[in-house]
Amino acid sequence: MSLAIKDDEVDIVIGALRSDLTTFMNEWRPMFSRFHLIIVKDPDLKEELKIPEGFNLDVYGKPDIDQVVGSSTSILFSGYSCRYFGYLVSRKKYIISVDDDCLPARDPKGFLVDAVAQHISNLTNPATPFFFNTLYDPYAEGADFVRGYPFSLRGGVKCALSCGLWLNLADHDAPTQALKARQRNSRYVDAVMTVPAGSLIPISGINIAFEREAVGPALVPALKLAGEGKCRWETMEDIWSGLCVKVVCDHLGLGVKTGLPYIWRTDRGDPIASLKKEWEGVKLMEEVIPFFQSVRLPREATTVEECIVEVANAVKERLGSMDPVFARAAKAMLDWIKLWQSVGSSSSRSSAV
Amino acid sequence: MSLAIKDDEVDIVIGALRSDLTTFMNEWRPMFSRFHLIIVKDPDLKEELKIPEGFNLDVYGKPDIDQVVGSSTSILFSGYSCRYFGYLVSRKKYIISVDDDCLPARDPKGFLVDAVAQHISNLTNPATPFFFNTLYDPYAEGADFVRGYPFSLRGGVKCALSCGLWLNLADHDAPTQALKARQRNSRYVDAVMTVPAGSLIPISGINIAFEREAVGPALVPALKLAGEGKCRWETMEDIWSGLCVKVVCDHLGLGVKTGLPYIWRTDRGDPIASLKKEWEGVKLMEEVIPFFQSVRLPREATTVEECIVEVANAVKERLGSMDPVFARAAKAMLDWIKLWQSVGSSSSRSSAV
Repeated sequence: MSLAIKDDEVDIVIGALRSDLTTFMNEWRPMFSRFHLIIVKDPDLKEELKIPEGFNLDVYGKPDIDQVVGSSTSILFSGYSCRYFGYLVSRKKYIISVDDDCLPARDPKGFLVDAVAQHISNLTNPATPFFFNTLYDPYAEGADFVRGYPFSLRGGVKCALSCGLWLNLADHDAPTQALKARQRNSRYVDAVMTVPAGSLIPISGINIAFEREAVGPALVPALKLAGEGKCRWETMEDIWSGLCVKVVCDHLGLGVKTGLPYIWRTDRGDPIASLKKEWEGVKLMEEVIPFFQSVRLPREATTVEECIVEVANAVKERLGSMDPVFARAAKAMLDWIKLWQSVGSSSSRSSAV
Repeated sequence: MSLAIKDDEVDIVIGALRSDLTTFMNEWRPMFSRFHLIIVKDPDLKEELKIPEGFNLDVYGKPDIDQVVGSSTSILFSGYSCRYFGYLVSRKKYIISVDDDCLPARDPKGFLVDAVAQHISNLTNPATPFFFNTLYDPYAEGADFVRGYPFSLRGGVKCALSCGLWLNLADHDAPTQALKARQRNSRYVDAVMTVPAGSLIPISGINIAFEREAVGPALVPALKLAGEGKCRWETMEDIWSGLCVKVVCDHLGLGVKTGLPYIWRTDRGDPIASLKKEWEGVKLMEEVIPFFQSVRLPREATTVEECIVEVANAVKERLGSMDPVFARAAKAMLDWIKLWQSVGSSSSRSSAV
């Protein structure tokens, strides 16, 4: 069912939080080598990047970020947020992004999972957000819609974002990670599903793909925790961005999928050390979720940019006084849209390595 | 995580559409023999039932239905609807029901799936309808909530219904079954998930379980197609009932799960013959879905019975003039609630075999 797309319609964006990408790149070589890569170096990282030969890639670092973004923005591209700079400078239709502590997974039969191909299949086949299909992705080989599924909805809608999952180290928050430090995820669930319209989901940025031309501006590095570190469980930027994406997709009639592909997440960081920091994430989510569940976008908001501006204004109004982190998030979202419109409309590219 | 429940809290309800249950019962013996069974014989079936020895069961036939229900009802207990008579006379907390053309499935490792145990686990562990968990059932062994899942929602809510799935012959409608007569479902998806609040689902009655005390009256045999036959793909009664259950559960804050357990569905019936009948299901669903998507129950409706009466009245008002099938469905729903209240409140039981 998958539409044929050309290799040059895809950018693979990697945020480099550590300097030695040798193992990462070599393990991913079979899946990545056909595509153009954008590697964005965490501006906090001092060491030179080590990247093996044989890839078609552009590397961006602090000087590139400063040059493109300038000093007139509230957006911080440090840590996991550095990849968003890659989203900004990409000119491709699709973006796939995987954290640099992830390797290709194997399916239960022992075969390497081609996460890139699965993400592309998810994005190029329709999504079905308006009615639940009990047999999962109806467009998968050997699958279909079940009895009772309305025929008028069987065409589906465009899939804008694909959220993949994780074997080995699952994506827990700092308290859960500390409490279950030895727990590993070994359950391979062979399914892709559309997240129903109106239902919110904690989209993780570890292993995602999206149609940049459809929802790019909604992937915004806005929520920066005070104690944010270089471990995923210390961050919330992707969760916030995912809530924005889902609300915008629901409003615009686009789909969000989750499930396959899995990637293999290796261990990084000390969960107990993370727990000792005062982690704001738990408390903030209790305010964030009711907000996103109740936010309604006006009918006049018909582009992703307009939708994000509306969400940002609502954040400022309804959450702004609760915690300074929300006021900063609202500001970052507005700045992001301005950046997207200025940088995104130009075709300037940084120099290749 | 599963709560211990006693064997005598469960009724297994089987609608017998064919007379020889020997293979069916013997194959299910390892899972069924600990529990009490209610077998309801399709009133259209003339032959005597053949049931092997060694089960604790009650059998109900046309005379029992006539005696308990009387002639003052619009409800038809023929065909797949006969099992609803079992729901009516059960006095147990939980009901599990499997079509008589289904056998125990095997998981990918070759082990027999205990569908009863999995359904009980689904019902006795909480559901999470208010936020999506990307790693599926957070209460499953080795699983948890993912980063970003609000802590205040991690307790979950009561699960009222569990919809299991099908290997081999999937649950298609007549046109799909005719078009893909040779297609078989071999994808074993190792997951249980809560269907999000506000999202409708085509619940199939082939392989389900529910807490009778929580939602029993919402499982109602109301939508009878004019051309309904003895093949699942010619019926809609369970789809309608499932939409009622989901709308009521959403209103009352209860959960509905889907996924495991799988059963093995054997072939029965000729899809091409089914297609030659004028199958109303396709057309009706186009009216049914927008209705259920938009029906809102008043705050005062706090019991399942009250909710179903409200839905019935709305059906009559909004769909009644479109097609006589809807007016009949509304009438059947109101009759069902009366029956449930009279029969359900008594403790009369039909005689055993």
